[in-house]
Amino acid sequence: MMEDNLLLLSNSKTHNMEFLEHAREALIDFLDGRRTIYFAPYAAATSAYDSYTATIQTAFKPLDVTVTGLHTVDQPALALRDAEVLFVGGGNSFRLLKTLQQLDVLNVVRERVTRGELRYIGSSAGTNMSCPSLRTTNDMPIVQPASFASFGLIPFQINPHYQDPPINSTHMGETREKRILEFLEENDVPVVGLREGSWLRKRGAHLRLDGLTAARIFRRHTEPQEYQPGSALSWLLTLPAIFDQRL
Amino acid sequence: MMEDNLLLLSNSKTHNMEFLEHAREALIDFLDGRRTIYFAPYAAATSAYDSYTATIQTAFKPLDVTVTGLHTVDQPALALRDAEVLFVGGGNSFRLLKTLQQLDVLNVVRERVTRGELRYIGSSAGTNMSCPSLRTTNDMPIVQPASFASFGLIPFQINPHYQDPPINSTHMGETREKRILEFLEENDVPVVGLREGSWLRKRGAHLRLDGLTAARIFRRHTEPQEYQPGSALSWLLTLPAIFDQRL
Repeated sequence: MMEDNLLLLSNSKTHNMEFLEHAREALIDFLDGRRTIYFAPYAAATSAYDSYTATIQTAFKPLDVTVTGLHTVDQPALALRDAEVLFVGGGNSFRLLKTLQQLDVLNVVRERVTRGELRYIGSSAGTNMSCPSLRTTNDMPIVQPASFASFGLIPFQINPHYQDPPINSTHMGETREKRILEFLEENDVPVVGLREGSWLRKRGAHLRLDGLTAARIFRRHTEPQEYQPGSALSWLLTLPAIFDQRL
Repeated sequence: MMEDNLLLLSNSKTHNMEFLEHAREALIDFLDGRRTIYFAPYAAATSAYDSYTATIQTAFKPLDVTVTGLHTVDQPALALRDAEVLFVGGGNSFRLLKTLQQLDVLNVVRERVTRGELRYIGSSAGTNMSCPSLRTTNDMPIVQPASFASFGLIPFQINPHYQDPPINSTHMGETREKRILEFLEENDVPVVGLREGSWLRKRGAHLRLDGLTAARIFRRHTEPQEYQPGSALSWLLTLPAIFDQRL
């Protein structure tokens, strides 16, 4: 059995940069010579699948990588049995998960990624999908998936686009930190607040934070901790994830 | 049959004001002499039910109104059969809806409010609950309710704490407007973006916007429209709500 290999980006577009530009070196290292990617655009509106896929194709062109929209193949679940890399893009996590459920691709992806046969790139909602559940998404629940259970390629939760509380705000809605602390009131599962420009790379038992910014990790009964790019976070892979256990 | 009577607040705490202070006159008018309220604190963590209820009790004391926490009675569904006013408070909408489902109070509230026997006050997540679905909440899906269907006391959706896009932001996450437009890609249902400090008052076939700020109304195939406090919005009660119809 080979090691699984995941690249989990907070976001694909960073301010003042081209699509995926901030992570280009990490993508080259991750692909390790692979030249074909299936792209899952399902977090976008149906009408945007083609244009979204074209954006990703353009971003990977300089790397000499061919990107195929999973929505353009007749049987996505079948295509994923032979794929070498899957990229799940951002958008709305609820729409993404509902579509993945309808296409019945959750199991094949989970099994092949875990066996190290299929490499997984996620960005934003696609990164949420790699977690056990979509419960730490920022997205609006615009549609109702059959279940919140997602790929579960890692045993903890990620909050992509993590934002620090705004300074001097008069808005009374919850800050991102407040929302994650609410999650911890209901679930005993660590949450990585992954700021824009950063990513996690998992290879087997090794997990590493990289990118442009620090990440903030939240755990029950613990003060949130900051971790700088380059930090080894493999310990996160060894912690239990207990959902629906109220404080 | 009496007219139903709803007061749907965007928020209960406005910057630099006491709890519910911004809506005090509206509350007095709404209660119309009623002196007892049941308060549903279920959007908060279990450990905060008592303190949350105490805050509401304090806010209603000047109005000479007695507030009872629904969590302090043995059988909430039974208590609601005789209640004259229900106040559903803010917090996390997913936690709120899941608890209301577990307590099996959705039907009794829906029926008695519709018959005009029970007046309904919502704030934030409590206002979300008055809609057909929680699909336009801002909250994190920290727990999974059995269904997204909520009280359905009105035929359209509300987005409480509506926020205009921040100026000069470099953040790449979705703005509130973007999220609501995503909702409209999947559902043909009007959405009222209810800014903090504002509320809707429904009496039978009449709906009115009031409070401190304008509201922004989103409909499919239509530019978003601004409505000032004092606007009659009864036309919103006559539009169809079609969920799960993709653009």
